[in-house]
Amino acid sequence: MIEGVLLDLSGVLYVGDEPLVGAHEAIRRLFDVGVPVRFVTNTTRSPRAAILDKLARMRFSVPDETLFTAPQVAAAFVEKSGLHPHLLIHPDLRDEFTVHPPETWDAVLIGDAGQEFTYANLNAAFRLVFDGAPLLAMGYNKYFKEADGHSLDIGPFVAALEFAAGTQAKVLGKPATEFFEAAVASLGCKSAHAVMIGDDAEADVGGAIDAGLQGVLVRTGKYCKGDEDRIDPGAITVADIGAAVEWVLTNRA
Amino acid sequence: MIEGVLLDLSGVLYVGDEPLVGAHEAIRRLFDVGVPVRFVTNTTRSPRAAILDKLARMRFSVPDETLFTAPQVAAAFVEKSGLHPHLLIHPDLRDEFTVHPPETWDAVLIGDAGQEFTYANLNAAFRLVFDGAPLLAMGYNKYFKEADGHSLDIGPFVAALEFAAGTQAKVLGKPATEFFEAAVASLGCKSAHAVMIGDDAEADVGGAIDAGLQGVLVRTGKYCKGDEDRIDPGAITVADIGAAVEWVLTNRA
Repeated sequence: MIEGVLLDLSGVLYVGDEPLVGAHEAIRRLFDVGVPVRFVTNTTRSPRAAILDKLARMRFSVPDETLFTAPQVAAAFVEKSGLHPHLLIHPDLRDEFTVHPPETWDAVLIGDAGQEFTYANLNAAFRLVFDGAPLLAMGYNKYFKEADGHSLDIGPFVAALEFAAGTQAKVLGKPATEFFEAAVASLGCKSAHAVMIGDDAEADVGGAIDAGLQGVLVRTGKYCKGDEDRIDPGAITVADIGAAVEWVLTNRA
Repeated sequence: MIEGVLLDLSGVLYVGDEPLVGAHEAIRRLFDVGVPVRFVTNTTRSPRAAILDKLARMRFSVPDETLFTAPQVAAAFVEKSGLHPHLLIHPDLRDEFTVHPPETWDAVLIGDAGQEFTYANLNAAFRLVFDGAPLLAMGYNKYFKEADGHSLDIGPFVAALEFAAGTQAKVLGKPATEFFEAAVASLGCKSAHAVMIGDDAEADVGGAIDAGLQGVLVRTGKYCKGDEDRIDPGAITVADIGAAVEWVLTNRA
């Protein structure tokens, strides 16, 4: 009864700049049977065009309208809210957001700022949040997998600001229920008939299950032994994207 | 029945480089009645000599042997443990620790590294802790008060690493019970007969109460309205160091 598929990118289709074995074949099989697919990513280090370029370079054909990114959802949320956030984001992402002058800042929007996570930048964000400004986070991922090891993602920096200011961030990317709901709406099926395939136990799989979807955890990318123990027993754990697609095809309507 | 006093420094005796009103008089009254006093600080941005110099410049006479610092307790702990920690600490503090070569690192020791809290430094610490190395923290304070506002202390960065690596730090400074026990042992009285006076609801007062001491929260320094609601109802809250010493003199043995 699976009628739609959400696919994480990094760690599921590729690691670094290398496609994972079987990923192209798996995507082709999904497209061949006509199951609607959306690609959903919390990556907030690269602009949308760079993500599409990277996928194309690795010979994944991902139509623009099937890519759901956390920055895109965050920009829409900020626009609708009328807030004027201070942006603690990666410099490459500035074009995707409206930049407001400091005297109007009434919120903090945080992405995976990478090297921009300096003491000074974090402290400036802290002072705003400490004074009551809402903290908007494009994700809550703990770490991601790079070619040379695991690296800190946005989550730890959000947790740092939450702890310091005694507040709780509003998460706009995965694992926010609203994010999954928007992606599922675009699939045109019910949440219960959609599955999220990802390598992040919390952001991808746990979040999807909390939002009423099914979840499949792949043992590639950032996956570490035991990750499945941290999530709902309802999640399925498989070797890789090939096995995950096999599961989809077996369980589709 | 108070027989000994532990006093926090910044926010209680001074803010920035300015002594707080009534602080000199309060300390003099304690010394005059002969109550043993120890000065206890989690400051890990300044070496011991700089702290003593700063106190002397502000005309607080604090004998060397009455100053208990978190780095001093941390250095003793590391020495005793036989660990070879990677040091994520303020550069000014390097002389207080043995520096071990990278190939021997089997732990991470974190202090308030200030500007040294870069993405690269935090990520290097994360990778060690993620691989199982213990995380030793010289404190867990959320923020401190500077002349121009509140600023991030060590705690949020410890929380970030704990969250990312799914681990829990061993805290060596306040609010660790061992820290308070060592300070009280030096006072020569029982914990129940010692009082900790500080401006940090968690690190100073909450920690002291958990360690069996009495706790007095002052409404100076980093204190914010409502801080007392976050701690044990056994804590006393007073206006400042003058009122805290008044309480000590009323309740002493």
